[in-house]
Amino acid sequence: MSDTLRRATADARVLVVGAHGATERPDRVVTEEPMEIRAGGPGQEPVSVAVTMRTPGHDFDLAVGFLLTEGVLGSAAEVADVRYCRLPEGEEQLYNVVTVGTRGRFELDGQARRFHANASCGLCGKQSLDQIEVATAPIGPGPVVPASVIAGLPDALRDAQRVFDKTGGLHAAGLADARGRLRSVREDVGRHNAVDKLVGEAALASRLPLSDEILVVSGRVSFEIVQKAAVAGIPIVCAVSAPSSLAVDAATTLGMTLVAFVRDGGFNVYTGAARIALST
Amino acid sequence: MSDTLRRATADARVLVVGAHGATERPDRVVTEEPMEIRAGGPGQEPVSVAVTMRTPGHDFDLAVGFLLTEGVLGSAAEVADVRYCRLPEGEEQLYNVVTVGTRGRFELDGQARRFHANASCGLCGKQSLDQIEVATAPIGPGPVVPASVIAGLPDALRDAQRVFDKTGGLHAAGLADARGRLRSVREDVGRHNAVDKLVGEAALASRLPLSDEILVVSGRVSFEIVQKAAVAGIPIVCAVSAPSSLAVDAATTLGMTLVAFVRDGGFNVYTGAARIALST
Repeated sequence: MSDTLRRATADARVLVVGAHGATERPDRVVTEEPMEIRAGGPGQEPVSVAVTMRTPGHDFDLAVGFLLTEGVLGSAAEVADVRYCRLPEGEEQLYNVVTVGTRGRFELDGQARRFHANASCGLCGKQSLDQIEVATAPIGPGPVVPASVIAGLPDALRDAQRVFDKTGGLHAAGLADARGRLRSVREDVGRHNAVDKLVGEAALASRLPLSDEILVVSGRVSFEIVQKAAVAGIPIVCAVSAPSSLAVDAATTLGMTLVAFVRDGGFNVYTGAARIALST
Repeated sequence: MSDTLRRATADARVLVVGAHGATERPDRVVTEEPMEIRAGGPGQEPVSVAVTMRTPGHDFDLAVGFLLTEGVLGSAAEVADVRYCRLPEGEEQLYNVVTVGTRGRFELDGQARRFHANASCGLCGKQSLDQIEVATAPIGPGPVVPASVIAGLPDALRDAQRVFDKTGGLHAAGLADARGRLRSVREDVGRHNAVDKLVGEAALASRLPLSDEILVVSGRVSFEIVQKAAVAGIPIVCAVSAPSSLAVDAATTLGMTLVAFVRDGGFNVYTGAARIALST
């Protein structure tokens, strides 16, 4: 078992109750732990930006992705380095505080301060669609993707998940190209964290904006997923389950393609059908 | 269709793509809208506490439940009234700002301020289990519930859901008694909101603490669900899907019963098995 995988699940004892009695056995559950995200420039005491509950693993990607998709940082070029905080009190929190060093002085103000005052779950602090339109770049035309590629994304995502089958407790998100090849897959107890880990990884590899990629998520698609995809420049979002009204509204306003209920070889397109090639 | 149900879903146009082509048809999606929660005492300008994305309906319950389960208010007795804000600018936000009037002067400070600085999703702003132990009352012994009652809760919850079958986009939560009879069921795009709506309803009916009741949730159970149940004094939490490590740890520390994977006539007990009567 890899170190990442070991940290992503935790031991538990469970009493399994069935029709014919109960037996105790060891079990594994998905790890949920708080992670504090801090940011600071050269010679500056880092500022606490948010605490998020997450599944350990790809923590640096999560921190950078979060700061970008929530508009706290304007671009990946602002990131100088990422490090775990070494607390003097002991080792316990060593991996639960991540500091993003910025090239210039870090200020948590304007829209970012508004965000800070309300949320680290990504969906709060914005009271209208107008605010996300300001925060996101225009979405490019992007690829035109065969319907068969879209239909195959959930199976590809499921095949690539490493933790899910052990615990059943994780959301997954993946980035795929226009041929349906998955570039990266992340799992987390928080669906927004899985997306932030993907975006952060791409940011640290200088791959933003993700103008030719498809985001696929294992569950439902809410406003925050669409918002985070938009900040990363992703033109197509696909969900295995249902969309919310605000996800549809936001995707429509932003010129994205939103596909949901991708299952059993079919799917529903809620907006942006021009990026789907139906005849293929 | 009731007014609540109509507000809980929204019209959409969808292109349904299958193996044999695509057809456009009208659809309904679950409504996701921001709601701002404010609080203030007599003669005091209300303070903005949080903005949460929620499914409209039972908004007053949500506001009160949120303030209680997040420790912003210490008890239901502090609530004097609940009202929609009447904004001078127009009617659009009329139902998206809820003000909870408190009997005494409202102060957002101490732990509440810490919360405010970090989250309205309920899961942030607390960096250790120590903090939730302070915030919650001790959980009482509670009822001893037959295994057959636990096993039947998901079906009862599903039968009681009104919106889910239309949109597939909702989390559900219910409160049941020790015989498995559902007292109340709430649905929301946010799983924490569904629980807050239940707790707020009980608070406004002066039914807290819910020392003899069972909380059943349609999906996974994370730390925040356990925390919210604990604040309401609920001794037993049952989830259809998986628990997280921190949910198990918190329930164990708080002396609650945590049951998960309730399906196919069986379930797993992660802690507090003494409240389950296996022989019945």
